[in-house]
This record gives sequence, C-alpha cells and structure tokens, in this order.
Amino acid sequence: MVGGGLDAFIGGVHRMAANLDGQIELAAGCFSSDPEKSRRAGEALYLPASRVYSSFQEMAEREAALPENQRIDFVTVVTPNHMHAPVAACFLAHGFHVVCDKPMTFTLAEARALRETVHKSGKIFALTHNYTGYPMVKEAREIVRRGDLGEVLKIVAEYPQGWLLDRLEKGQKQAAWRTDPARAGATCCLGDIGSHAENLGRYITGLAIESVCAEFTTFLPGRPLEDDSNLLVRYKGGARGILYASQISCGEENNLTIRVYGTKGSLAWVQEQPNELKFQPKNEPARILRRGNGYLSDTAKKFTRLPAGHPEAFVEAFANLYKEIAAAIRDRIDGTPGGPYDFPTVDDGVYGMAFLETAVQSARSDAKWTAFLEA
Amino acid sequence: MVGGGLDAFIGGVHRMAANLDGQIELAAGCFSSDPEKSRRAGEALYLPASRVYSSFQEMAEREAALPENQRIDFVTVVTPNHMHAPVAACFLAHGFHVVCDKPMTFTLAEARALRETVHKSGKIFALTHNYTGYPMVKEAREIVRRGDLGEVLKIVAEYPQGWLLDRLEKGQKQAAWRTDPARAGATCCLGDIGSHAENLGRYITGLAIESVCAEFTTFLPGRPLEDDSNLLVRYKGGARGILYASQISCGEENNLTIRVYGTKGSLAWVQEQPNELKFQPKNEPARILRRGNGYLSDTAKKFTRLPAGHPEAFVEAFANLYKEIAAAIRDRIDGTPGGPYDFPTVDDGVYGMAFLETAVQSARSDAKWTAFLEA
Amino acid sequence: MVGGGLDAFIGGVHRMAANLDGQIELAAGCFSSDPEKSRRAGEALYLPASRVYSSFQEMAEREAALPENQRIDFVTVVTPNHMHAPVAACFLAHGFHVVCDKPMTFTLAEARALRETVHKSGKIFALTHNYTGYPMVKEAREIVRRGDLGEVLKIVAEYPQGWLLDRLEKGQKQAAWRTDPARAGATCCLGDIGSHAENLGRYITGLAIESVCAEFTTFLPGRPLEDDSNLLVRYKGGARGILYASQISCGEENNLTIRVYGTKGSLAWVQEQPNELKFQPKNEPARILRRGNGYLSDTAKKFTRLPAGHPEAFVEAFANLYKEIAAAIRDRIDGTPGGPYDFPTVDDGVYGMAFLETAVQSARSDAKWTAFLEA
Amino acid sequence: MVGGGLDAFIGGVHRMAANLDGQIELAAGCFSSDPEKSRRAGEALYLPASRVYSSFQEMAEREAALPENQRIDFVTVVTPNHMHAPVAACFLAHGFHVVCDKPMTFTLAEARALRETVHKSGKIFALTHNYTGYPMVKEAREIVRRGDLGEVLKIVAEYPQGWLLDRLEKGQKQAAWRTDPARAGATCCLGDIGSHAENLGRYITGLAIESVCAEFTTFLPGRPLEDDSNLLVRYKGGARGILYASQISCGEENNLTIRVYGTKGSLAWVQEQPNELKFQPKNEPARILRRGNGYLSDTAKKFTRLPAGHPEAFVEAFANLYKEIAAAIRDRIDGTPGGPYDFPTVDDGVYGMAFLETAVQSARSDAKWTAFLEA
Repeated sequence: MVGGGLDAFIGGVHRMAANLDGQIELAAGCFSSDPEKSRRAGEALYLPASRVYSSFQEMAEREAALPENQRIDFVTVVTPNHMHAPVAACFLAHGFHVVCDKPMTFTLAEARALRETVHKSGKIFALTHNYTGYPMVKEAREIVRRGDLGEVLKIVAEYPQGWLLDRLEKGQKQAAWRTDPARAGATCCLGDIGSHAENLGRYITGLAIESVCAEFTTFLPGRPLEDDSNLLVRYKGGARGILYASQISCGEENNLTIRVYGTKGSLAWVQEQPNELKFQPKNEPARILRRGNGYLSDTAKKFTRLPAGHPEAFVEAFANLYKEIAAAIRDRIDGTPGGPYDFPTVDDGVYGMAFLETAVQSARSDAKWTAFLEA
Repeated sequence: MVGGGLDAFIGGVHRMAANLDGQIELAAGCFSSDPEKSRRAGEALYLPASRVYSSFQEMAEREAALPENQRIDFVTVVTPNHMHAPVAACFLAHGFHVVCDKPMTFTLAEARALRETVHKSGKIFALTHNYTGYPMVKEAREIVRRGDLGEVLKIVAEYPQGWLLDRLEKGQKQAAWRTDPARAGATCCLGDIGSHAENLGRYITGLAIESVCAEFTTFLPGRPLEDDSNLLVRYKGGARGILYASQISCGEENNLTIRVYGTKGSLAWVQEQPNELKFQPKNEPARILRRGNGYLSDTAKKFTRLPAGHPEAFVEAFANLYKEIAAAIRDRIDGTPGGPYDFPTVDDGVYGMAFLETAVQSARSDAKWTAFLEA
Repeated sequence: MVGGGLDAFIGGVHRMAANLDGQIELAAGCFSSDPEKSRRAGEALYLPASRVYSSFQEMAEREAALPENQRIDFVTVVTPNHMHAPVAACFLAHGFHVVCDKPMTFTLAEARALRETVHKSGKIFALTHNYTGYPMVKEAREIVRRGDLGEVLKIVAEYPQGWLLDRLEKGQKQAAWRTDPARAGATCCLGDIGSHAENLGRYITGLAIESVCAEFTTFLPGRPLEDDSNLLVRYKGGARGILYASQISCGEENNLTIRVYGTKGSLAWVQEQPNELKFQPKNEPARILRRGNGYLSDTAKKFTRLPAGHPEAFVEAFANLYKEIAAAIRDRIDGTPGGPYDFPTVDDGVYGMAFLETAVQSARSDAKWTAFLEA
Repeated sequence: MVGGGLDAFIGGVHRMAANLDGQIELAAGCFSSDPEKSRRAGEALYLPASRVYSSFQEMAEREAALPENQRIDFVTVVTPNHMHAPVAACFLAHGFHVVCDKPMTFTLAEARALRETVHKSGKIFALTHNYTGYPMVKEAREIVRRGDLGEVLKIVAEYPQGWLLDRLEKGQKQAAWRTDPARAGATCCLGDIGSHAENLGRYITGLAIESVCAEFTTFLPGRPLEDDSNLLVRYKGGARGILYASQISCGEENNLTIRVYGTKGSLAWVQEQPNELKFQPKNEPARILRRGNGYLSDTAKKFTRLPAGHPEAFVEAFANLYKEIAAAIRDRIDGTPGGPYDFPTVDDGVYGMAFLETAVQSARSDAKWTAFLEA
C-alpha cells in the first residue's frame, strides 16, 4: 500500500476490504510521504519494519529486489489524486500490478499516458470505483442487460454530502487535499464523488455521454475549488440525464442515489440502503429486490457473502472489487485463463477523467453544451 | 364552475375540495363547451337545469342577472389552459370573484393583461397551486421563515410522472389537451407539473429566480410538446437549484419532491407521503415532523382537520386553499377586514407564466443561461 | 346525526365522509344530551333550528312525523358506547336505517338484542369499522380470496397509540368517556382501537377466532380501565395470531398495522401509509401495490377517487363506507335489487362484542386460553 | 475454531468478523466431527495441516502442548447447540479462553454447570449475541441509561423469518440440526432466534423477566420442534412485553425489530436497517439517529469504523464483539487492568437458557403465566 496513513479514511477501508475474504494480506507499505509517519503506521499495522518504506520509489525498488515468493503481488495506491499516476507508473515499471483509487489521475492527459503505460506493461490495473461492487448494483446492470427496462430514456444520479459545509480544510487532512487544486486537480466535489455517480450510471446502463452542461459553485468564500456541481447530461442515442454532486448539502451523509428510467421499466438504488433495489416494470407493481435471495441473477449471488436479511454494506462491496482483482492476479500468477473480471480498469479511469475535464470545461463556458472529450 | 365535465380529473377534485368543509356549495356550472355534455354533467351533479349553462358567457350573464342572494359568489375555472384568461376575464367583468387552475394563462402577455384586469376589478382572484395547501408544506415555509435553515443554498425540486410514456393523447382527453400547443401553450410537462415544482420552491423559500438553463425533450416521436424538462436554476442571492419535471419516468406516479438545503439545516418533503416533513438541523439527528402534532407551528395546525396518525392527503390540501378563499370571500361579503390570506394570487400566476416562458426561451437557446423574464 | 357535537372528534369525520361524494346531506341532528350544546352545534353546521333536537327520542319522533320526502333517510349514531344501542333501537323503531359507530354496544347481550331488533325491523344497519374502507385493505382481502397467500398461518395485528400516556381524562371529553366503565364498557383500549384490529384481520382473512389469551394492563394508576391490551389468538383451522392495542405507547399516533402470513405469500399494510400494500409472494421479490393503478382488482378500483400518486387517506376511506351505505339505502328506496354491499353489519357488531367480552374474560382468568364466546 | 465447516453459515461469519480489524488470526481448527471434512476445510482456509484436528479433544490437548507463543489464544465454538458445553469445558480445562455461539448450552442445568466451570477456571468466556454489537443498539442502551425514555413500560421484540416454511431439514445441514431435538434442545425457533430477541431487549433496557406466557406452534407436520413462538412477557417492576419469533413467516428474511416504550420517549430499531435508530421523545418529533455522527454517545462512536453514510452492517457488528473480546484477552495476556468489556458472558448465557426453559415449560402449560426459572 502507498498512502493510507493513520489519519486517512480510505486506506483503512482498503485494508478491511482486501482482508475480508482472507485472500489478501498486507505485506508492505509506504503510508506517508513523511518517513516517520509511515513508520508509525506500519508499526500499528503489525508490519515488520523492513517492509515499511520512506518513499514509494524505495518501496518499488526494494520489493522488486525481493525473491518472487516474498515480495508483494500488487500495490494499492491511496494517495491524494496528484500522486496516483507517478506511483502507479513507478510500480508498473517495477513489474507490479496496481490497484488505484479514483479519480485515476490529476489530468486527462496524464490518464491517457497512464493507459499507455499500463497497456505496455501488460500488468493488471484496477480502479476502485467501489460502489459498483454492491451486489444490487450488479443486479441493476443485469436487469438493464436483459432488456427489462427497454430502452433507457433518463438517468438521475445524485450524490449529496454535507461535510464540507464547514471549512474543514483548515484542520482536517481529508478536506485539505480535496479542496486544494495542487493535489485534487481542477475539481473538488465532482472529482471526489461526482465521478462515482458518473461511473455508476455507466456501469449500470452502458450509456456513453455525448455532451454535458455543468455548473460548478463554490459556496464557501475563498475555497479554490467547487463544492457543488450540477450537470445536465446528453447521452449518445438520445437519453437524458441529471447528475449532481454536492458537499454542502446540510444533513446529507453519503447519499449516492441512482434512478434509471426506460421504456419498459425503471430502477432505483440508494447507497445508504444498499441491500435493496427497486425495480418497477411498466404497469406493474414495483418490486423490491433484496440481496441474498434466490430470485437474483447469478452475478448478484456471486458477490454475496451472507444470507438475505443479514445486511452487507460498504466494506463487503469494496471487498467485491478486491475479490475480482485477487482472482485476476491469481489467474495470472497461476497461468490460468480467466475472466472477464468485474472491476474497473484503466480505460474506465481515462473515461472518468474525460468526464471530469469535459465538466470543468463546461463549467467555465457560456455555451449550454460541451461535447464530451475524446477519452 | 366552468369546465370540469364528467371525463375531467381536476374538476371533480375541485368539487370535493370545495365541499369538504361544508362552506361551499356547487350552485351553477358550464361543464363543457358542448352544451349537451354540460347538461348531462349538471344533472349528474344534482344541479337544477336552470343553473346549467351552454357557454361560460351565458353563465356569467345570467348569474349576474340573478338576485344577489341567489347567484353564485365566485366561479372556479377548470378548463384547458387556453381558456383560463377569457373565462376569468368574463366573470371578473360581471362582478364575480374567480378561482383559476394553473398555469394561469396561455402566455405571459395574457397573464400580465389578466393581472391588470384583476387589479382593476377589485375582485378576489385565486390560483390553485394546490400543493401549497399541505400543512407540512406550510410548516416547511415556517421553518425557513424562522431562520432554522439559515441561508438557503440549494433547492432540488423534482416532479416525475410516467403516465405519458404511452401515447395516451390519442384517446384520453386529459392527455390530449396537455400535449396540444393550441390548448396547453408552449410547454406540456413543465407547464403542467413543473409549474407546481417552481411554485412550491418559491412558496417555501421565498427565493426569486435570476436565470435558468433548460433542456426540453420530447421522447415520444411526433408529440408536439416536451414530455421531459430538466432545469438548472440560479436564484437571486446566490442559491442554486435543480428543477425537473417528467412525464415519461416509468413507474413514477405523482412524485413531487422538494429538498431545501441551508447553512444551518435542510428540509425534505415528498408529496406522496404528505403527512411527514424531514427537518435536519446541522450536526443533529434528522427530525420527522408529522401533521397533527402539538409541536408544529400554528399555521400547520390551522390547516389540519384530523388528529395525528389519521392521514390527510390530496383533497384536504386542496380544500385548504378553498378554506382560505372562502374566508377571503366571506370577509369581503361581510365587510370584515381580514387577511392576509394564504392562497396564490394573480401575481403568483404572472410569476409562474414568466417562469414558463423563460424556460421555453432557454430550451430553444444555445446559451447556458437565460435571464428570468420580467414578471 | 345523534352525538358528534362540536368538541367531538368522530362526528366531524362522519360529516366530512358522508359529504365527500355529494350524495348525502346533513339534514337534522341531536348533537348533545345538553339541549343548548345541541342547538349551538346545529347552528354552526348551518342546520335550520327546526331540525336540531334536544333529545334523540324527540328527533326520532318528529322526523318520523315529517312527510316522507322531507325527513331524514337514515341516522348516524356517534355517541359514547353506552348510548349506541338505545339510540339505534329507537330510530329503528321509528322506521329509520341506522349507521352506528363501533364498538356496536355496551355489552354482548345488548349486541345480541340489537341484532334481533335489526333483523325484525328489516332496516339497514351499518357499523363504521372505517379502516376496512381503504382500497388497499380491500385489495388485501382480494389477494387472500384469490388464494395468493395460500393457507393463512399467522396474523400480526398491532394498534399502538400514545395519547393516553397522559391523564387526559381529567379535561378532555374524548378521553373521559373512553376511560369510564359507565360509558365505554368493560374495556377502554381494546374496545376503542383493538376492536378495529380484530375487525381488520377478519375482513382481510375471513378467519374466525377459536380462543384468546389476553393480558390487560392499566399503566396509569387509578385509571379504571386498561390502557394496554396484548393478546395471543388461536384461529379456527390452526392459524395463530398476535393482536395488541395500546394507548400508552409513547410517540405512536394511530399506527394500525397488519401482517398476514400464508403458505404462499404474505401481506403487510400500515394505516399511516394507506396508499401502499406490500405483497410478498414466496421466493419472489416483494411487490409494492399502490392505490390507483390499473393492476389492482376491480374492488380496489371501485373505491378510489384520485389517480395514483395523488394520495387518498382517512376521510376517503371513511367515505367509502358511506358510499356503500348510500347505495344500499338508495337501492332500498328505489326498490332496485342490489348488493352485496361492502360495509360492516349488525352481525359484525355482534362478533366484535363477542371478541371484546371474550378478551375481558380472558384478561381476568388464570387459564391460558379462553374459548371465543358464541356471537 | 471448533465447528464452522465449509457448509456452515455462522463459522464463516465468525472468521470474517474476527479477521476484520486485523487483530485476530485463525491459527488452528477442528471444523467437523468428520476428520476428512475438517481437513478439507482447514486446507481451504490456508491452515497448515498440523493445526487442523480430527476432534476437539485432540485440538485442545495438542494446542495446549505447544509453546505459549505458538498456541492459540482462545477457541471459538460454533458447533450445534448440544456440543457447546462439552467443547467449551474441554478447552477451559486446557487453559484456553472460550468464545461460544448461542444459545449457550443444551439445557439450563448444563448452563449452570458451565457457569461453575468458567468461574473456577478464571478464563474469559464470551457468548456471541452478535446483534448487541451494532453501534445503534449500543446507542439505544445509552439512551435508556441516560433516562431519556423515563420508566420503560413496554417492549415489543419481533424476530420473523420465513426460511423454514419449506422442509429444508431434509437436505440442508443448517435446518437439519436446528429442527432436531437431539442437537438443538427443546426449542427450535425460540432457541435459534428468539433468544436473540430476548437478549436484545435485556441488553437495551436492563429489565429482568418475571413470568412468561408462551405458545409454540409447529406448522410443518412432523417437524419435532416448534417453528413459531409467541410470548407475552411480564417484566419485574411492571413493564409488559410481546416477544415473538417465527421461521414460517413467508417473505421475512431476518427481521429482528425492537421497540421500547417509556414514560418519556420511545425507541425503535430494525436489524435490516441497522445504521438507524428512531428515538421519539414525548411530544416532540421523532429523531432519526444515524451511525457515524458526532451527536452520538461515545459508546456508539467507539464501535464504528466508517464515516456516516458509508453503511456498516452485520459483519462489523459481529466484529465489535470480537474487538471487545480481543481487548479483554490482550489485557489479560499483558496483565493490564481493563474493562468493563462490552460482550455477553456466561451469566448472560445462563439467563438465556433460563428464558428458553421457562418458555418451553410455559408452552406446555395450561396456566397463563409461568414464573421465570432461577438463572
């Protein structure tokens, strides 16, 4: 692991998720750009001092120098955004598979370059859009694929949070880097959470964006990036969408919600109640599909650990990504043909960065529509 | 009553609502532009034949000719949109108060003219934006007025329906006039239901619109007006909004929903569960306020008929408008000073038409923002 | 109307409900045993003084003496329980149909006697178990009748309220008579609201009770009747049930809820969200059936006034009873053969009183099971 | 671990839960009474063959013979009920701490004997009533302890499931032992899940039972134990309760729900939505308390891993027990004084067995009330 020190949030989630199925073990790490902080984190995580590094370059080099059966199999990159690409590229160069947090890079150009690097390396690269790990999200995709919605006409994807209503960036590391253009990139709110909303819509429906109309607002005076992002979206083929993300919506926690309306039915899923999926066939009663039941698709069943009514949640969904990543890496190591694997790749990452840059461009433009940038 | 024949929906609602408190009695009507249909409706409504008219002009004239204690006190106009202004103006000219369905007129120009007529007549004119009649909507407004939300930053108003996913306009009168530019005006979906969403947001927050960015989509090929309308909104003072209305959202019934986010708290209200209002003060648990309880404002209490837990709904909310209208008319008749009365007026109607015309203009424009037209 | 003065709750509901469809008009009344109070109520209800009476006997006599086309068609009895039977019997004797609030009488013996009187009179007698008027309750019954639940195994009927947690009986008329054995009978809580829960279960499932095990508790010291009633129920044929009513459940408003579990499916309905019915077929997703939709049974549709998503509630459900009662009376007057009509009758009233007396007996007994008294 | 083979459910949950925080590692096991099955399970769990045993006695002996820093620190017993006591006693005798699944033993007598054994051994003994591990359950207890409910008057605890509506015991191991008196004891449904409902009520309120009135029903012909259990409960001090468990409630998954009503407020918690707790102070709006927020008690915060809105669920709650157990064992090993620890003990186990035996006795009795057996 690179990043994910003791005061980080997402690093700990990655560790729990990777750990959940007993298939992945934390073996080494560089948990901070501050060597002392990295050391202390490693200690708290019961790592031997020899596997805790002061820089990611040192880690990549020294791990690569270890005998094959002792070194790490892959690295997880959970640094602020601006460091994703350099760290990923470094480990790829040293022959390691990479798991990377989202948004994939700092810029679209960097994303395209990383795609090139990944393809050349032949290594596995996974992007942790974790919300697609929920079984009921996978069920939603199956329903669309089966044609049960008919043609998709409209997507409403919302991701309101309220935590940045306060000026947390003064004291809290999480807020500090997310609101800092030098570390987060050209967007705060849309990059941090709107990127999940976009990815979720695409994962479920497969629709590609044609153009967007974005408005970014910064409600806290002096904050250099937007804390609220509202978009109208035109999808290729004629569907329409509303996509918004907000970090100043008082009282909202992590309320990612998606509704997909088709000619034959509609779907609604709410991340805070992740074990349910509402499917409404046209002219019939809505059906509440619940995780763990026999009537679900094989895909939803595959990514389920507990019986129905024993709720699973965020960590399990995250672990579902790691489960697939572990399968892909294991197959690669074993030389077993496998796949397709169900996790986001570098291509998804480039697409996501194209979305963000298109939205940033649109937010700065007086024109209603900005064409989607070539991914 | 003018309009509201046997195959209409909203006419029957007006009658139930007006009737609920035993203060208003249907005394006369012209229920259709087809005299025979009007006659049959009057019969079914137990009206004497002498008070059922063949045209609204005839009705206005002949009612005005009756002795004061026998003629109607006011008229309710529930025709398709294009007839609102002519009918209203005619009854005003004959000295009657007017209750008119929304949107108020066919065009903004007509709305401004009607405002002039109303003001000159000195008569009472009420517009039935019925959703503002719900006690919990009134409570929401009280919460904003008390300052419990702080400064309002964002409004998300949604009004999805699914009934026009089918080409109902071929056979059903409701759908036929709403999708016909000659009767509905320049918008179908936004005029029919989006106008309620706009009015609701303004009623609760008092915020005025600065500019809008609208996209109208017609999903059913050949339908002359839009059946889906998505808007970004900028409010004066800096608040931002999303407002959308849809009639092709499969499975949605009448899901008018509003969320208002301020610096100190937020609100959420869902029309299909109208007895509840969620109020979330910053950094505190959400509170579920429920109609009929002692902790509500006097305003919410005033518009409540049943104890808590005995649900009230659409008809009662509609009847709350009539309750206020009846009070205003009674006070006028009695010469009693009264008010302010809590019902939408001709000014709200002009504002609403300005909203619709601004949105129509925006929908046709390539510019991101269209300034709100002078109401 | 007899009873239902200005400080009563249920009288006003009866008036709104009877009035809603424009088929029933309040024509006369004796609204209080205090003539002056009766007079004032009549005045407030816009009744001519000549039709407002000082005693129910006077009303019955003088109405009967009016010409047929001027006198009332039926009487509604909304007095405290001890007066139901005398008033009903008096009006039956004078040739009037009767609508009576529940529980039907003061004692089971009185109920049996009233049944005799009704049958002899040949008049229509309706009991206002209003919750069976909800369209989704009717849909529930249809589902059971169609066999979609298979054999019913278990019924859980709950009716918690919290309003008697305070000693309201000192000042409030509603609480005073309900907690007074001289006016309410041998039970407060079970008679007042548990009787609805019992009736609702029987209406939906048709199951008859074999025996009950009741515990009555009086939580407020000195209150002469129980304010909390918990029952285990054995139904004929082997089904089991839990039925409880409570008036000291803090924060509960009017939370009548019923769940019915069968071998092939289950149902759940919550009075405070009356437009929805949850139907869960075995091994399939739960279905949320909603009032006003085309997929519902003809029965549910018949008792619906508004389109889906325009919520109906308590008054409309109550009005559905009156709608059927009005149909029955009209058919009788017109000599038209009609029916069966969907409202509770004197037989339901006797059954309900047998339930209450069985429960009272059980509550006083050390034996686990008390056999259901002969209705 | 003893028990918890590959076809078991709860064993896997224990492993995920123990593993989640990276403090506990599976080191040895006897996963089945069939040595070959045990071996295969150990292999699948990446255990060295030397630490996979053919019998629990062998495991206890050989682990005890290992050097202190190599042997297990404690054993988790996840066998069917009849084996809990023998296995636990054996490991206690060999000097190991014990974590045991519920219900604790086969009989009350056995429970009392085990309590004796535990107390003599001086070892730590934890019982996995996992639902008390949920942070919002802990918050509920804090609310009661703070006095915010006033005096508790009523507890309604429900635990419906539907999975035994089919005769699964013919093929499925989970169902087979639970419905077999030789392995499950004198109760199936109440022992398996009703025991959780009882424990949850006691954990939150601290109330002790005075007497119970139980009805057990076996709906599937030929099944030797009850699959539906309904109880009325009298608590010491005057509170009343309803407690029911069911395994034949079609469509129910794992719907453990508890409502606690006091003189000043009430609480409701639903296991399937575990991140929320409804707290309703008297005469005030209900408050929806949600996990991860700053306004919660320190206790609820202590047992939380993720920010608000990132849902936690069953595994995390289970892991909270292991977190406390690990702390207790670590303090014991380190000689650090610590505690009190928040996990159920052998005393809770004896209490739970007394509850089950009292209920079984009551179910067989014609008397309404059966006094609670001495724990």
